Formats: sequence, structure tokens, C-alpha cells
Amino acid sequence: MSLIVQKYGGTSVADVQCIKNVAQRIKSTRDQGHSVIVVVSARSGVTNELIARAKALHSKPDEREMDMLLSVGEQETIALVSIALHALGVPAVSRTGAQAGITTDVCHTRARIKDISGGDLREQIAKGNVIIVAGFQGLSESGQITTLGRGGSDLTAIALAGALKADACQIFTDVDGVYTADPRIVPNARKIHEIAYEEMLELASSGSKVMQSRSVEFAQKFNIPFEVRSSFNQQPGTIVKEEVTMLEGLLVTGVALDRNQSKITLSELPDQPGTAAKVFQALSDANVVVDMIVQNIGRKGLANITFTVSRDDVDRAELAVRKAFADKNQPDFVTATDIAKLSVVGVGMRSQPGAAAKLFEALAKSSINVNLIGTSEIKISVAIDPDKADQAVRVVHDAFDLGK
Amino acid sequence: MSLIVQKYGGTSVADVQCIKNVAQRIKSTRDQGHSVIVVVSARSGVTNELIARAKALHSKPDEREMDMLLSVGEQETIALVSIALHALGVPAVSRTGAQAGITTDVCHTRARIKDISGGDLREQIAKGNVIIVAGFQGLSESGQITTLGRGGSDLTAIALAGALKADACQIFTDVDGVYTADPRIVPNARKIHEIAYEEMLELASSGSKVMQSRSVEFAQKFNIPFEVRSSFNQQPGTIVKEEVTMLEGLLVTGVALDRNQSKITLSELPDQPGTAAKVFQALSDANVVVDMIVQNIGRKGLANITFTVSRDDVDRAELAVRKAFADKNQPDFVTATDIAKLSVVGVGMRSQPGAAAKLFEALAKSSINVNLIGTSEIKISVAIDPDKADQAVRVVHDAFDLGK
Repeated sequence: MSLIVQKYGGTSVADVQCIKNVAQRIKSTRDQGHSVIVVVSARSGVTNELIARAKALHSKPDEREMDMLLSVGEQETIALVSIALHALGVPAVSRTGAQAGITTDVCHTRARIKDISGGDLREQIAKGNVIIVAGFQGLSESGQITTLGRGGSDLTAIALAGALKADACQIFTDVDGVYTADPRIVPNARKIHEIAYEEMLELASSGSKVMQSRSVEFAQKFNIPFEVRSSFNQQPGTIVKEEVTMLEGLLVTGVALDRNQSKITLSELPDQPGTAAKVFQALSDANVVVDMIVQNIGRKGLANITFTVSRDDVDRAELAVRKAFADKNQPDFVTATDIAKLSVVGVGMRSQPGAAAKLFEALAKSSINVNLIGTSEIKISVAIDPDKADQAVRVVHDAFDLGK
Repeated sequence: MSLIVQKYGGTSVADVQCIKNVAQRIKSTRDQGHSVIVVVSARSGVTNELIARAKALHSKPDEREMDMLLSVGEQETIALVSIALHALGVPAVSRTGAQAGITTDVCHTRARIKDISGGDLREQIAKGNVIIVAGFQGLSESGQITTLGRGGSDLTAIALAGALKADACQIFTDVDGVYTADPRIVPNARKIHEIAYEEMLELASSGSKVMQSRSVEFAQKFNIPFEVRSSFNQQPGTIVKEEVTMLEGLLVTGVALDRNQSKITLSELPDQPGTAAKVFQALSDANVVVDMIVQNIGRKGLANITFTVSRDDVDRAELAVRKAFADKNQPDFVTATDIAKLSVVGVGMRSQPGAAAKLFEALAKSSINVNLIGTSEIKISVAIDPDKADQAVRVVHDAFDLGK
């Protein structure tokens, strides 16, 4: 008998009818002879309602109290899912994060898991019970309720699967799995059967928001394979794991697009040691994550630095740079332009050359100009005109022969 | 510096604006130099919404899961009230029932408090923090979340006040205090300044539902005085305690009315030992609480037994009696009639005679017929025609000179 950890997100447990459907799925899994541990999120909308109430009381509510507040969302769901299982004749018990022995540090609203004892979960499994665990939450060593931040329920599921040496970990969500490109843009995009952790990570950081990077990093660190699949159909999804069988010898696994990027250019900076450091230290201090960076020497020995940030961070980034140069040598101008970032990702790039050439050729053929280029071992990203982004994804997807 | 425990019910924390008002009240108390522990209920409506969701999933949801579910209501409120206090610059921390060290037995949905360690409450008080404790909930010795049943938040407040030796315990509610009679019926009813636990208990059991008997019993058992007062004005309320100063030498403290009663008559029962026992054993087995009882011998040596029950229990009571006599000697008829129960309550009755005479005289003068009579040491109850109930309360209130 194998142990399966399943995670259902907020849209999967949004209301009574959804909860009934989830209970039916859990029952099916159990009827196949598996032991099942289920991790659930808050019903969709609940967390936002709670946040709205807190914000109506205080513009910057205390983080410890926010954890106390937000953890109720999942606690509601675990009880309701257990009750729904009872109605189907399935023995089930709910457990809060604390009861499941999930110990975290004390960083409220973004706590990190330090240990998972599993509480009495093994005992409950032995009794034949399905266990419904509240995702997203834990207990600090000082006995305070903590939450794990965005994507926390995925993390709970993956960490529990690791701690309890589960045979499978299934992340049920509102997408079918990971695709070679966004199917809304590329009609012949293909579902990827297996993908490596690091490819998944690069896709996540490139705008393909199937899951938060953090959960994938955790899975990679402890080598916990998991499957991303839909809670609205019975299709197999995408398995994310360490080693991927590369039957096809694919150079590129997928194409991702992030429309939420801006390019900031600082012109006429003194070309002297420390200028770039000063810029990026200021950005780091302001908690702005910088993606691609290019530096050129312009006229009069002055430097231009161009970098990309999330569009939400543009104002903060500009302010930080202006402050850093407030005393002297203010850069002549700071300009921000919205751009799209297209990335091709694949572990195949590591062993096979030619991905960059193929990418640039495809874009050039369609007269799509490349603004900036960034690379990692298994990824090439280009900043392009947002108006041409969809077209770019389609031609690149075709060029790498990723379609059905 | 004195320690005050305050309890705010669901209507007092119903929404963001109500919570702001409650925070302001707490701040005022603290500004007067007191340490404050606050016990809160779930926002009004929340508990019913949660129950509705559970019932939509299962006709008889598991009690342990119901406790897991319902305890989120209070957990939401403690966080919101803390955040509202922070907005007023008041240092505050929230604590769940478990964190406040409230240990209960394992009787889910109606757990009894076994011990209150207080958790780190004393430490938090010493730090100058206001502490917001979730009412209605505790933790069983096996680590399960439990709830205390109806009136549970009052109980939490009173029990905490006792455990921490608070100087005062204030139960804020939507009524001003305990009155000599319902002010909606008797316009010149007076707020009672001080009332004895036992009087409060008799009033509660006589239809004056300011508080559940259970909390008052707990307060009496451990001699924890408390005050019932309104959260919507600044008036002093009614202090409930052991010894009441009887400056006025009052015979009767208040008049209560319970309209939700039915009188059941069993006729033509065999007048032999064990008949009454059989009836009331059957009712007890069916969990029907019987209030007043009268037995008469009728014609042919057959007995009539009349008793009163809550109107909600009439069907259950009839069924239980019919089942008890199913084999033989079925009583000739069972009739149920709705009645009203008027009670006069006062510890003065114990030392001064004449209450019964004065009561019956007042009713007779107004031609109000008395159906049944029940008495305790400090109470006389009469069953009367519901149509004359309001009039009866007014004439009795006058007869005992209880008005302003």
C-alpha cells in the first residue's frame, strides 16, 4: 500500500460543491488502496476578505496577528473536507499545521519550515484514516502560529511528502500541468510529461506561474518528486523531478513569457569603479529584484546601465537610484519602459549547443527586435516589445519544434 | 493596578466598525491604569455560516470536526481586535484558547473546563500588553481543539478571571444589565444594581436569558463576581456576586417570564407506585427537561399527571411517554397546551414570609388564573394563560413594589 500526499488549492475547495468534488477524488484514491494525506488551502477569496478586514483596521497590521488571522482560512477548510469525507463513509481527521508537527522559524507571514515531526499522522494512517492537513501554516518553537507565505500550501504538501517518505505527491491546481508554452497563446502547445526541478524553477522565474519557486526549490533540495495536475479533470499532469528521461533529446523544454517587466535605463553615469555596485546595492537595499543587466560605455566616457525589474517595482527602483546619487553625479536620466521577457528553458542546453542561435534566428525572421539578453545554464531570456510578445512566443515555439 | 477581564459578545464585534468601538473601550479601560484581558466571541453570524456549510456537507457532522471548524470564528476576532488596538497605539497580543492554557475534557462541542494555566498571560500582563483571548474554546489533554458550547465565551471570561484572580470581570453584551422585569413589558422596570448568583440562576431558568446558567453556576462555584453591562453605552450594569447588600430588605428581586413553555397532561393513569417514576424516567431518557409537576387523583382511583416542558420538547416528550406505556396501561389522553411561566425570584423569600400570598393576591385581583405552581427556596413560578402574561408581569411587578 502506498502513501499519497495530495494538495488542493483554494479554487478546488471554493465552496460546498467544490469540496464535495474534492472529497470524491480523495475517496477514489483511497478506494484504489492508497493511504492518503491531503493538504488544503483556504477557500478562494477567504484570505483576501480577512486581509481586507485587517487593512480596514490598520494600514500595516502586525505580522504575528496576520498569521493568527490568516491561518483560520485553512482551518475552516480542513474541517469541511473531513466532514465531506465522512458523508461519503470515508474515515477522516483534520489536523492543523501545529498538530501535524510543522515547526517553523518565527518570521511571521513568511516563515520557513525547520522541522516536520508529523505529529500523530503515521498513527492515523495506520488506523486507516485519511488525514486533512491545513496548508500554509506551522507553529514556531515559541508556540506562535506562523504562515509560510505565498505558495505555502504547496510547500506544506511537498515537505510532508518528504518527511513521511510518501510514494507520490500530487499538487492539484486549476491548470492541467506544465505546458511547452501558454496554450492561450500557442494553440498547439503540448503538456510536458516530465520536467526537471531546475527547468521548473527557470520557468517559474520566467513568468510561467504554475507554482511558486520556493516550493520547487524545497522539492529540489530534498529531492521530493511531485506531480502538478488539474483538480477539474482526470488527466495525468506534469511530473517534476530530479532526472528527466530525455528520449527526444530536446534542446528546449518550454517557452515562457513574462509581460510584467520594465526596463530601466540610467544614462550618463561616470564610468568608474563602483558605479554599478552603487546602483545595485541601492536596489538591493530597497528590496528590488533585478533580472537582466546590460552596461555600455557611451559618449564622453560615461556609462549607460540598463536593467529589468518587475513592473510593480519600477517606482521603488527609480527612487532608490535617485537617492543613491543624491549627493553628486546624479545620472542624467532614468527612463523606464514596459517590456516583455521571453525565455526558452531546457536542461538540453547544457549538453547541446545552438539554442541561442536558433532563438535569435527565429526572432529575426519575424523582425522582432531583441532589447536585452540574459542567460543561465539552462535558460536564455530576451527582452522584447510587448506588442510582439505573443507572436514571438509562437515563432520560437515552432522553431524549437515544441508543438504537438 | 488592578486586573480587569472584559468579555465582548458577537454583536459587539460584528464588523470592522464595531471592532473599532470595542478597541476604543478597551483603550479607555487601560488608560485608567488597569491591566486588561479581553475575551471575544466570533463576529455575529460567522458561527451560523460555518454551521450551514458543515450541514450542507453532512446532516450530522462529526463533533470533533465541528470544534475544529467553529473555533476559527473566535480566532479571527482576536486577531482583528489586536490589530484594532495597535491602530490606537495600544500594545496587544492575541491568544487562542489553547495558548491561554485552557484545558478541557474531550466532550467535543460541549467541553468542560478542567484547568486554566493561563499560558503566558501573566508574563504578557507584566509587559503591559492587553491580551485578547479567544472565547468558547480550549484544548483537550490529547491536544484536540474543543469548544465549550452555548455561552462558552462568558464561561471563558469568568474562568480566566477566577484563574488569574482578576479584580473585576465585565461581561459586555447587548443588554444594559439585569432588570426587575423585561422593560419592554414593564416600562418602569428598574436595573438591578447587585444580584446574588442564585437569583441570577433562577432568573435564567425562568426565561430571563441574559446569560446561560452554566457560566453563572461556574461563577458561583468558584465565587467569581462579575458584572453584566452594555457594550453600546457607558452605564454601569448589574453586579452578580455571592452576598448582596439588602439595604431595602426586598422580598423579591425580579419578575421573569418564559413564554416558551407547554403544559402536558396525562390522564387516567393507574394510581400505583412506580407510575410517576416510569413517566419521568422516560422523559429523562429522551433528554426532556421537566420543570413544574403536579399530580392529582381523579375518578376511579386513576391519576392525572401534569408537567411543563419547553415548547421545543413537546413532541419528544409525548413520544417518550407513549413509548413508555406502549405495552399496557396507555394513559387515556395526552394533551399539550402552550402556557406562560411567570416567576418571582428573590433571596429575601428565604427570611421573610408572604411572597406567595402577595403573588396570588395580585393575580387574583386581575382575574388571572393560576394553572400550576412550582417553588424553590428563592422562587415561586406559576403557569398562566399566555394571553394574560404581559398583564400578569405588570401587576406582579407593581405588587412587589419593584418599579422606579
